[in-house]
Amino acid sequence: MKKAVILLSGGLDSTTTLYLAKRKGFKCYCLIFDYGQRHRKEIRCAELIAKRSNFPYKIIKIQFPWKGSALLEKNKKILKHCKQRNKKEIPSTYVPARNIIFLSFALSYAEAINAEAIFIGAHIQDYPGYPDCRPQFFRAFKEIIIKGSKTGVEQKRINIFTPLINKTKAEIIKLAKQLNVPLELTWSCYQGKRKPCRRCDSCYYRAKGFKEAGIKDPLLR
Amino acid sequence: MKKAVILLSGGLDSTTTLYLAKRKGFKCYCLIFDYGQRHRKEIRCAELIAKRSNFPYKIIKIQFPWKGSALLEKNKKILKHCKQRNKKEIPSTYVPARNIIFLSFALSYAEAINAEAIFIGAHIQDYPGYPDCRPQFFRAFKEIIIKGSKTGVEQKRINIFTPLINKTKAEIIKLAKQLNVPLELTWSCYQGKRKPCRRCDSCYYRAKGFKEAGIKDPLLR
Repeated sequence: MKKAVILLSGGLDSTTTLYLAKRKGFKCYCLIFDYGQRHRKEIRCAELIAKRSNFPYKIIKIQFPWKGSALLEKNKKILKHCKQRNKKEIPSTYVPARNIIFLSFALSYAEAINAEAIFIGAHIQDYPGYPDCRPQFFRAFKEIIIKGSKTGVEQKRINIFTPLINKTKAEIIKLAKQLNVPLELTWSCYQGKRKPCRRCDSCYYRAKGFKEAGIKDPLLR
Repeated sequence: MKKAVILLSGGLDSTTTLYLAKRKGFKCYCLIFDYGQRHRKEIRCAELIAKRSNFPYKIIKIQFPWKGSALLEKNKKILKHCKQRNKKEIPSTYVPARNIIFLSFALSYAEAINAEAIFIGAHIQDYPGYPDCRPQFFRAFKEIIIKGSKTGVEQKRINIFTPLINKTKAEIIKLAKQLNVPLELTWSCYQGKRKPCRRCDSCYYRAKGFKEAGIKDPLLR
């Protein structure tokens, strides 16, 4: 059975990506990061999702002992969603080089287990400001695999798949529904409270997506 | 004062690189990795070197919870140096994607402190087999910075310097001597004993380098 490493954050996008990889016939190895994010709720959700899917998972604990992101500094305020914000601006929630680090670990894992694919649920519709979610970044990372890894040098392949890259949140939610993704286990809010805050960027796009998809968000019932 | 992040392993090469960056006028921020290597001696050496140089340093603890390298698996034997070995072969001490992960953290640190450079002491003379020490890998990583980081997208620069890339061990040792590198604090051996084992690849190349440079290794006195 062909193997894939899936970057799983516990959110809607990465969970849908996991179920998509499963449908494509991959045996999935989930990789969850505990990187000092503001709350542990998303890590717990990711773990529950991995267990529900019956695939193996690993939690990697990493530190960012430097500042530079609202996601890492608990005293730094995460701005309320604001429609007028310049979409091209890099948000305060950008963590320096985060996806580069995550993909590097995924590559290491993939090499160690002879996987042929890495799946990441990045998309650019809602967050065009994040540089490490853009197609040109993923293309550059493929070059890294070819030039700087054992797999590449031995002329085997580890491909990076970003199946959601051009989808809107509504399209992702419709796809999740088709794939029987346990939407009730996914967590998007930047806060780790019992219920989503409904104010942050992430809540805003989730609510908008569910509305446009004509589906009820099970978290808001 | 211009800032640089230096990947510091405690070995001869990275220590010489640190002193080279210092001579080029950089304020150096040392990054040391505790990644489950076979022994802690090189971490202690790196720390002592950073302290001696009077530059700040951070130790990043990371896990590789998968197999795939003799450096990570204590029951996997590190082969004795063998002259007949095919130099192009990837050695058993290759850690999947290690330098990719290390550079990603260095990039994150560099972005967080507004550094303009990352220095890494990789060279290809002794270890042509390691894919993540080759010039084409570093070129590919520069593209990652341009395409996938805030710095790149904002059209600022973080450059990667590999000043030792084409030097032999003897040339590095001569340079270290010129730069007053504390050679007695550096550690190269894959074992973490009191004295170098004199049998592993790393000891072999160190001894050969000192001999060719006509300098005595202070560790062997």
